[in-house]
Amino acid sequence: MPQNFTVTPYAVDGEVDYDRLLDAFGADALTDDQRDRFPDPVHPMVRRGVFYAGRDVDPFLDAATAGQTCSVVTGRGPSGPMHLGHVLPFYFAKYLQEQTGAYVYVPLSDDEKYFAKDRQFEDISAHVRENLRDLLAVGFDPERTRFVIDTADADVVYPLAAAFANDLTPATVEAVYGEQPNVGLTFYPAVQAAHLLLPQLVHGRHPTLVPVAVDQDPHVRVCRDIAAKERYDVDKPGDLLSRFLPSLGGPGKMSSSDDAPSIELTDDRATVEEKIHRYAHSGGRDSLAAHREHGGDPAVDVAYQYLHFFFESDDRTVERLARDYRAGDLTSGEMKARAAEQIVDFLEAHQARRDQLGSLDAELGPYRLTDDERERARRGVGVETGRLE
Amino acid sequence: MPQNFTVTPYAVDGEVDYDRLLDAFGADALTDDQRDRFPDPVHPMVRRGVFYAGRDVDPFLDAATAGQTCSVVTGRGPSGPMHLGHVLPFYFAKYLQEQTGAYVYVPLSDDEKYFAKDRQFEDISAHVRENLRDLLAVGFDPERTRFVIDTADADVVYPLAAAFANDLTPATVEAVYGEQPNVGLTFYPAVQAAHLLLPQLVHGRHPTLVPVAVDQDPHVRVCRDIAAKERYDVDKPGDLLSRFLPSLGGPGKMSSSDDAPSIELTDDRATVEEKIHRYAHSGGRDSLAAHREHGGDPAVDVAYQYLHFFFESDDRTVERLARDYRAGDLTSGEMKARAAEQIVDFLEAHQARRDQLGSLDAELGPYRLTDDERERARRGVGVETGRLE
Repeated sequence: MPQNFTVTPYAVDGEVDYDRLLDAFGADALTDDQRDRFPDPVHPMVRRGVFYAGRDVDPFLDAATAGQTCSVVTGRGPSGPMHLGHVLPFYFAKYLQEQTGAYVYVPLSDDEKYFAKDRQFEDISAHVRENLRDLLAVGFDPERTRFVIDTADADVVYPLAAAFANDLTPATVEAVYGEQPNVGLTFYPAVQAAHLLLPQLVHGRHPTLVPVAVDQDPHVRVCRDIAAKERYDVDKPGDLLSRFLPSLGGPGKMSSSDDAPSIELTDDRATVEEKIHRYAHSGGRDSLAAHREHGGDPAVDVAYQYLHFFFESDDRTVERLARDYRAGDLTSGEMKARAAEQIVDFLEAHQARRDQLGSLDAELGPYRLTDDERERARRGVGVETGRLE
Repeated sequence: MPQNFTVTPYAVDGEVDYDRLLDAFGADALTDDQRDRFPDPVHPMVRRGVFYAGRDVDPFLDAATAGQTCSVVTGRGPSGPMHLGHVLPFYFAKYLQEQTGAYVYVPLSDDEKYFAKDRQFEDISAHVRENLRDLLAVGFDPERTRFVIDTADADVVYPLAAAFANDLTPATVEAVYGEQPNVGLTFYPAVQAAHLLLPQLVHGRHPTLVPVAVDQDPHVRVCRDIAAKERYDVDKPGDLLSRFLPSLGGPGKMSSSDDAPSIELTDDRATVEEKIHRYAHSGGRDSLAAHREHGGDPAVDVAYQYLHFFFESDDRTVERLARDYRAGDLTSGEMKARAAEQIVDFLEAHQARRDQLGSLDAELGPYRLTDDERERARRGVGVETGRLE
């Protein structure tokens, strides 16, 4: 790990050098060829380098383009309400599912949030229920999507985690994650391995892709080492690593650790407009006159970055916005107004789908593991006590 | 821990000094008064000092004698077939249940056997099924008895273990158990805490007694520290500590680590007679003449010890056997014949009940946690995601 910044699943400090991070982690930058092989139209998050690196991306792309079985695992740590930035990876996963037929597995790690935060399960359960409504609103295909909650689906998650725990030493966990405050967190990488290998245990060996922020790569590496032991009929999952999306306060920070408010998935138009107007870090000049004369810097302008990373799908429009901003022809206020407009459009559609949901129990049913899938997963690690004949 | 022998849940070496062990562990020797307060007739294992110490035995005796809610937790590590020595604690628990109405909870730790032994889950599952048939044959009251299998009942066991894991540091686990070879074993004391606190989470706060061999005391102590945090509505479980029952090869050793064969629960009369005749360590003299002249030593005579510890319920008969043996009036062969006879009687009754069992699935049903009990246990630690409304 380079010395002037640290990136672990529990802390991100300093200005992140994404290329040095790849060297430190041993992951590979995405090549142009790989980017082009993502399903057409290539998602802006890939095309514009939010997802910029990974491990074993090719086997996934091979299977996806050939119409073979493949899966995407993308999780949620239910420590609070989901913000705008939290939901974007799920829309990315939905894009992959729509274009390739991939299974999407969404583990909700309420146990980890309990282990890592000073919270009771009651509080976390409330967030689980709330987060699930947002995840349901994304609109995944229920036939090919499973939401897995560690405590509620412990009948599957724990036997798998136990199976994988045998291949993981406390020393490895400490080397990867540092000293852990409780044995729940020491054990948790085995739970994470269960998340990542579950699709293969249910549907048979196939390429899995795990799109995550680059700080989550250690989880995937630990799981890959377990999968490599070849005790189970699984391939090593690949991952697709993203930069951190900027918070309103500016790039290089994670939204949850910033003073500026986050855009909530429940925010209405006026609230979004006000948050962006007041808090979005501007790449513009101190005065309108200076901006008109010298131009702004889109690279640090959060409103532009939002459009660039996700919300403006048209490449020529994005390029024009950057050009006009640099030239001083587009003001910071105009850029913010445009970003707010497109974010509001996105949120209103999300909120409309969310509002149409019935009871969580009824809506969630089709997205939960079936009894047969649970049995197959347990059998995949040799646990057959589910059937006691 | 004294230096000339070691006792941990994973190793017993050297000649055990049971009194020094109590000092090292900080448990209390049973008093005569406590022995007398066990339900009448006091079980031979208590009366004759197999169970010789414990922690918080009084609250259990208070509740038991007053007809209030109390529970007994006594587990099984399903690493192989159950031997004669393995089943005796369950008959002791049945005695407590019959005399006091205590709930009896029997956790089967297939996960721990997987973590601690180099075995696959498939092998362990086969032992679980076999062990369950023996546990069913004991004849517990299905209304007041629950068999809990860690992987098959992970929907309850894991959420509870996760809740308790937060109060347990890796350093504590290492201090109590030594360095662990995998994170499953690091986590396992939290699973054990789930076993011991489960009856209280299901039935409300009440005194629990855990009858175990003295080497299992560390598990109970770790659980007591967790219960003492008062985050949950539970009392610290008490324990009742036993000496190690001698194997055929002689006292001071555990049967599983000895060269002499064990008496299997499936052994027939001829096999039992032969094993005892050939292998039971004798306290007699080298020749019949020497025995008649000098007498034998019942303290190291395994046949006598079996009768003393469990199989001969009449005190005067036991005393007479010891007296006659010391005097040389009773030969080693006669003592062995008598022990074999009473063990065969016991085994034939056990085997008859076992043979009458139907399919494991059907027989086990009434002994498994009900949906309501599972929900209550999960709610007891704040996990409510079982219901997702």
